Amino acid sequence: MKGKFVTFEGLDGSGKTSVLKRIEKYLQQKTTINYLLTREPGGNQIAERIRQLLLDANSLGMDSRTEALLYAASRRQHLVETVLPALTAGKLVLCDRYVDSSIAYQGAGRQLGEAEIAQLNNFATDGLQPELTIYFDVPPAVGLARINAHRVNEINRLDQESEIFYQRVRRSYLKLNTTFPERFIKIDATAELSEVSNETLRVLQNRLPLIFKS
Amino acid sequence: MKGKFVTFEGLDGSGKTSVLKRIEKYLQQKTTINYLLTREPGGNQIAERIRQLLLDANSLGMDSRTEALLYAASRRQHLVETVLPALTAGKLVLCDRYVDSSIAYQGAGRQLGEAEIAQLNNFATDGLQPELTIYFDVPPAVGLARINAHRVNEINRLDQESEIFYQRVRRSYLKLNTTFPERFIKIDATAELSEVSNETLRVLQNRLPLIFKS
Repeated sequence: MKGKFVTFEGLDGSGKTSVLKRIEKYLQQKTTINYLLTREPGGNQIAERIRQLLLDANSLGMDSRTEALLYAASRRQHLVETVLPALTAGKLVLCDRYVDSSIAYQGAGRQLGEAEIAQLNNFATDGLQPELTIYFDVPPAVGLARINAHRVNEINRLDQESEIFYQRVRRSYLKLNTTFPERFIKIDATAELSEVSNETLRVLQNRLPLIFKS
Repeated sequence: MKGKFVTFEGLDGSGKTSVLKRIEKYLQQKTTINYLLTREPGGNQIAERIRQLLLDANSLGMDSRTEALLYAASRRQHLVETVLPALTAGKLVLCDRYVDSSIAYQGAGRQLGEAEIAQLNNFATDGLQPELTIYFDVPPAVGLARINAHRVNEINRLDQESEIFYQRVRRSYLKLNTTFPERFIKIDATAELSEVSNETLRVLQNRLPLIFKS
């Protein structure tokens, strides 16, 4: 595996996706880095069908363990069909959410147990961890306010979860930051988008000097 | 949980489903036992959609870990929506395939590891084991011959697996028989259907005397 695998994590409304758009623009305009920006289900037919089922979860009365198993299944297929081939081709793979999302959202948020969800995802990924994870930290109130301001018409069921749910999720992310200080880098994402983007770029440049040397 | 949970296992072509039909006829005609005969996905909308995806697995290039995760997800939902309510209502639940199928087929057959698949399914079932498992033992050649004789026009992809695959599956079932001698009862299923059915009924009567006393 010649490429580098970097994941991005954070609460809904952390600004993660906006930052990733800016990083992509930078990579395109200022570098010749061979990269892949992706997120599950990532256009895979199987993962896409699983994701459609997850979107209907609430109306169908889906159990939270079923949900966790389906996220893991979607992740597995995305990994095999999209991430691993890109890594084998030597690409820098930037992935919007990965295992840590499930640990925080299903393990802590839905209270299925962080260790259990880590174990489940260890099966799904066959133990493949990213080289680097950048976590965009915001208090739940900030994330929820951004969600309500920016996408009033597309509130999904996760957005409807209470602030208490998001507090559990954030605490879990902060715990990962303590448990994996080398891999898991926290960035204060309450700042302006341009500032958060610059900080993200600095972390990437520092941690992946051989890729960003050009 | 007042009911009793009994599962039925065996290779494709072991005659399991035919025996279960006879057992059901007996329960209806000769007893007043309140029972549920079921199998995954068991009419659950979520489990059914997962199963449809599994049936397309081969054509879509599904990874075997994705497959194992989807079976576990389907099992979870069937357990929560169908099995547990019936057990709570005090019913005798007869389930055609359960965790042991995944251990034998995905763990040993597809070589994902029996311990890993047991652990995955332990998450899916939250550790719920059946009280009794009846395993219909046939050599792979017998099972495959029955499949080819009885359903020429509906050979699915599992039926197309090689005899070597089924040998691994059978060895795994026999190992379960050794590991769980109390729960996991082996019946020789190479005999005539009526003989196998009578033997199955004897095992049920011996092991569940309070239910079958009437």
